[in-house]
Amino acid sequence: MIILTGGITNPGPAKTAVNLLRYKPQEVVAILDENNRGKASRELFGLGGMIPVVASLDQAPEANTVVVGIAPTGGKLPREMKATILEAIRRKLTIVSGLHEFLSSDAEIAQAARQHGARLVDVRKNEERDVAHRQGLREQCLRIHTVGHDCNVGKMVVSLELSLALQKAGHDAKFVATGQTGILIEGDGCPIDAVVSDFVNGAAEKLVLANQQHSILLIEGQGSLAHPRYSAVTLGLLHGCVPDGLILCYEMGREFVAGMDTCKIPPLSTLKQLYETMANLMHPCRVIGVAVNGRKYSDTEVAQECEKVRREMGLPVCDVLRHGSNDLVKAILELKKQLGKS
Amino acid sequence: MIILTGGITNPGPAKTAVNLLRYKPQEVVAILDENNRGKASRELFGLGGMIPVVASLDQAPEANTVVVGIAPTGGKLPREMKATILEAIRRKLTIVSGLHEFLSSDAEIAQAARQHGARLVDVRKNEERDVAHRQGLREQCLRIHTVGHDCNVGKMVVSLELSLALQKAGHDAKFVATGQTGILIEGDGCPIDAVVSDFVNGAAEKLVLANQQHSILLIEGQGSLAHPRYSAVTLGLLHGCVPDGLILCYEMGREFVAGMDTCKIPPLSTLKQLYETMANLMHPCRVIGVAVNGRKYSDTEVAQECEKVRREMGLPVCDVLRHGSNDLVKAILELKKQLGKS
Repeated sequence: MIILTGGITNPGPAKTAVNLLRYKPQEVVAILDENNRGKASRELFGLGGMIPVVASLDQAPEANTVVVGIAPTGGKLPREMKATILEAIRRKLTIVSGLHEFLSSDAEIAQAARQHGARLVDVRKNEERDVAHRQGLREQCLRIHTVGHDCNVGKMVVSLELSLALQKAGHDAKFVATGQTGILIEGDGCPIDAVVSDFVNGAAEKLVLANQQHSILLIEGQGSLAHPRYSAVTLGLLHGCVPDGLILCYEMGREFVAGMDTCKIPPLSTLKQLYETMANLMHPCRVIGVAVNGRKYSDTEVAQECEKVRREMGLPVCDVLRHGSNDLVKAILELKKQLGKS
Repeated sequence: MIILTGGITNPGPAKTAVNLLRYKPQEVVAILDENNRGKASRELFGLGGMIPVVASLDQAPEANTVVVGIAPTGGKLPREMKATILEAIRRKLTIVSGLHEFLSSDAEIAQAARQHGARLVDVRKNEERDVAHRQGLREQCLRIHTVGHDCNVGKMVVSLELSLALQKAGHDAKFVATGQTGILIEGDGCPIDAVVSDFVNGAAEKLVLANQQHSILLIEGQGSLAHPRYSAVTLGLLHGCVPDGLILCYEMGREFVAGMDTCKIPPLSTLKQLYETMANLMHPCRVIGVAVNGRKYSDTEVAQECEKVRREMGLPVCDVLRHGSNDLVKAILELKKQLGKS
């Protein structure tokens, strides 16, 4: 695949690109970004090694797929990206997008795809129309859900890392993707924030029912209960996936909601209580660990932060990309034992 | 208009019919319900006086509009209603539906409407694609939001009755509809439960921004924060409309979530705290009154219930359809004064 980033290198808006580079580097042929042509991926994102940054599709003739690698607020296709997509369609490449604005709803793109026989994949397109039923949950399956203090703090990465670590330790764990990037990485899941709101809880429940043959589910969280924009998504997912345990994810140093600099984020202890209160309306549940994203800080600073939060919250804390996820894995297995799940 | 009820007389699922009969009786020519043909509306619903119940469109030749009067869980069009709709299309009537399953998405209905030049109105169809911004709120506008312990407990009726009572008392009050029935009655609004979940908070905020030239907004609530199916809608609306005050609505005697008889509804005091906690994440807000729906009980029983809840909660309580809404109107005007809104 070739990843379009439209010149964006901030790992927040470019999170699809960043995480494909982190978890699927062997499938990435190139990054298309005119402004940064000639560089290597690791120079832009600290990931993806020597994967080249190119200025046109010509320079990556071996690609058979183009992926829109950014997730802008509101999910609209950037105008300047459309020309590249039309060019890719003329080359009969498959186009994959996780935007709210569907490729297939753009008359020009849809018409070009028909004409050239190119495939359009709109990851967020869905026809979810089922409400939740709260029936048929397999009691032996442990449901762990990552929740956060804001968007883009690492809920997907933590869910994925925990599922990989649990699998490595011999457990039958499954990453349950709920966002476009997670779906591209895992190959299945549901784009929960694109579901019609009446059916969000139902779509989350369906995801659990579809995967509960596994022993442990790591269900990717979305947004935050305190997010002025996305709290609907967060609560529907929290209620629909009826978790047994939560991992609270946050980015160290972030005080205001990203992109909304008058909206202060509540303290972690408040958020812990909020998530537990809301989750327990449906099913017994507690926060069992904290995942810090310390990307802007040094090893020493992150270690101090972890120690501080560990003391304050009385919970295991780690930065999974820096420390691995042993402490959180232990907390999950401990909960599994406590609840008598085999 | 002629209202289709498909034989349903329970005021829960038939809430669109019931409330059109309550608030727009002068526009209703007949109810179409074969099972109850020959009766009068008031016999079926205790509303609508002598409006006839008919067995076919033939019997109401003066109608120019057909309204689907039911709101089934999941929002699908009942199969047996489709024949009547196709017949109405052949008669060139306008068809209005508030179902999640759009008339215009049914190939046969859409094709027939094109062929006969009949108009299809899907009230829930929307293209909401804006996130919330938390900017531009007019501080002088008082925002009152009705919230509930479950679906179908009277949040729309309470919002409407309060707006009518405030208008009668000379205040510039506006009912802000957020559901299909409210939209049909008021003529504007947003079908919030049909909005893609990422944009629910944004759509609610837009409704407030579009109406805040009024002094007092009565914003119709949806679902419940404790509803296993619809809590996403409830929270997005609560956060998006940033209320100053809440009216907590409940149906007397209802202990379990309607249609989910293993899900117990939390006590009113718990719900009050939940709504206040979640609302205050965005803006200072408190519950200022309680609206009881005592439809299944006698005057004496409802009076006792009101007294009990008044004592327990320390708030004004009334059944607006039985007692009028004076006590709640007073509470709203008191809050307006306290907040210094002119």
